[in-house]
Amino acid sequence: MNNVASYLSERAQGLYDSDIQEMIELVYRHGALSFTAGEPSEELLPLEKLRSSLSAAFDGGPEILNYYHDSDGHEGLRQWIAEWMRRGGILPDSLGWEQLILTTGSQEGINIAVEGLVNPGDTIVVEAPSYAEALLTFAKERPVMEGLEMDKEGPLPEALEALARKKKIKFFYTIPNFQNPSGAVTSLERRKAILALAQKYDFLILEDNPYGHLYYDEAPPGAYLSLPENDGRVIYLGSFSKVIAPAIRTGWLISSPELHAKFHQIRVTNDLNLPTILHEGVFRFVRDCNFEAPWLDNSMDFARFAVENEKIGVIPGQIFYTAPENYKDTLRLSFAKVCPENAEEGCSRLARAIAKYKERR
Amino acid sequence: MNNVASYLSERAQGLYDSDIQEMIELVYRHGALSFTAGEPSEELLPLEKLRSSLSAAFDGGPEILNYYHDSDGHEGLRQWIAEWMRRGGILPDSLGWEQLILTTGSQEGINIAVEGLVNPGDTIVVEAPSYAEALLTFAKERPVMEGLEMDKEGPLPEALEALARKKKIKFFYTIPNFQNPSGAVTSLERRKAILALAQKYDFLILEDNPYGHLYYDEAPPGAYLSLPENDGRVIYLGSFSKVIAPAIRTGWLISSPELHAKFHQIRVTNDLNLPTILHEGVFRFVRDCNFEAPWLDNSMDFARFAVENEKIGVIPGQIFYTAPENYKDTLRLSFAKVCPENAEEGCSRLARAIAKYKERR
Repeated sequence: MNNVASYLSERAQGLYDSDIQEMIELVYRHGALSFTAGEPSEELLPLEKLRSSLSAAFDGGPEILNYYHDSDGHEGLRQWIAEWMRRGGILPDSLGWEQLILTTGSQEGINIAVEGLVNPGDTIVVEAPSYAEALLTFAKERPVMEGLEMDKEGPLPEALEALARKKKIKFFYTIPNFQNPSGAVTSLERRKAILALAQKYDFLILEDNPYGHLYYDEAPPGAYLSLPENDGRVIYLGSFSKVIAPAIRTGWLISSPELHAKFHQIRVTNDLNLPTILHEGVFRFVRDCNFEAPWLDNSMDFARFAVENEKIGVIPGQIFYTAPENYKDTLRLSFAKVCPENAEEGCSRLARAIAKYKERR
Repeated sequence: MNNVASYLSERAQGLYDSDIQEMIELVYRHGALSFTAGEPSEELLPLEKLRSSLSAAFDGGPEILNYYHDSDGHEGLRQWIAEWMRRGGILPDSLGWEQLILTTGSQEGINIAVEGLVNPGDTIVVEAPSYAEALLTFAKERPVMEGLEMDKEGPLPEALEALARKKKIKFFYTIPNFQNPSGAVTSLERRKAILALAQKYDFLILEDNPYGHLYYDEAPPGAYLSLPENDGRVIYLGSFSKVIAPAIRTGWLISSPELHAKFHQIRVTNDLNLPTILHEGVFRFVRDCNFEAPWLDNSMDFARFAVENEKIGVIPGQIFYTAPENYKDTLRLSFAKVCPENAEEGCSRLARAIAKYKERR
């Protein structure tokens, strides 16, 4: 056999290793404490509920173990996600579950979009900084990547327009909510300005939203997908990795019907079907486990539970409001007098109490 | 938004729909009897054993629900597959589980290989006819595809050499065992001749082997991967779709360490991780469920079971041999006097009996 490079595609020759994946591997090998992967605390992972949902996925008989009739994936789960997004104001009336493709995490959604859209030499714009593995996937198709400056309100529209004037942009990749790695939330005004630029200069928007549900008090502004100015040019990526568990690898891709038809063809070539038995389990989990309900609908009930079960005291937040019925999902933590060691121990106890409380419901 | 074609990559513009997927979809919509998908009889799917293996996958605690430390996938399952292939004479000593990447069915393995190897305009050779969805995946990268004539012993080496003399071949894609759709098994002599041509004309061999374990009496000849003439140029694709269940979407890709390093990078860009919780379940299934053991190690015991439980009579095959201990996994079915309707009913009963017998063990 000759030198391996003589067999590789141009695409493969330009690929490089993921530093994040290497660090995750090294943390594992060394048994180190990890500030590396963006993953939930293990105490918050719904182990027993997922176990029983996955077990129940077999109740309908062996048909679920065969090839699925639609390469876009499990219809019940796609319908549930679409309805959930609709209620949350994310999915516009012009789109439905038929345009939703289940993906192996949002990474596969990024890859499908890139394969469907990018020719070598095309210009794409990304936030600076941005999600490292998205950059890897983009690099595979050898576009010109332009970084877009950000401030606390998100990416700068003037800088984007300056880029768009200079050359044709294929798409702008953005993580508008709790951006990885900056944490920034793009303001509604910025979203509208950027969408207007997308129309004016005719480029697409690839909206990656794995973190949109991870807010404490105030929901982030409306998704690009949902804005009335979206004329079909927004491609939306969602994921359960951060709100259920990473290892179920369940994400989704929604786009206009015309783009969807092509993305569907790419799905077939890339992996034909995803594991239906797993998605039947995820479907039962979200449908049956009050996944959508605020977990803390009675904070006094939780406060009693926490002190009795994990010896950690917190104050129900509703008592500080003139309309307490709207604030039953709040807690007050007073930490000014607590030393750092006790604060850490207290957070661990609180996390355990939350996990146990959720399991119980 | 402009016409969708203005946004698509050249790759996407050339993609076409899968006729097989459309027929599977139509069969489902019309509730029709199906001779379409290559999938096991539902009576043979190991529903309860898979359910309990997947449930047991949660026993080790929540860590299994996080991102996995190695994008190639679950180490225990990769080690089990490598050992299984080693015992079966498929995996040569030069390769190990470290070069094995778990894939979403063998389709993802085909896609990873294509993305890693094929530039537009490259020549690849496929058997004529061949697996339709592999052709779709190849078409995505716009190679020149040459069909290679076959007879009962497999593809014709003379025809392959005639092609190789005319132009540089990137790889030859072959399904050597129970080829889809012809059913042909490539003889050992042909395999050696084709591997010699691959060396002489310096092309790779993409060996797709989802059906190698589906034989009745005689195992197929040695895999290209295992032949001593393989100097690293064979890329091997395996799958549990036909021997456990399609909907677990668990396949694998094995290649030389140099190729593996690139295929690993492509895996990261395509989907980052596969669902570890599912693979922990599959691992427990193959490890704990006597997956490898011949299911019929005492055919008289099975014959009694079948007639008592499903009212179907068969004769243990070992009694027809001078060395019966070597033939405990055989049955004799006498069908000359059975009318077609009873033959069909009898086959259904036999299938149920086999399924129940396997569940019991």
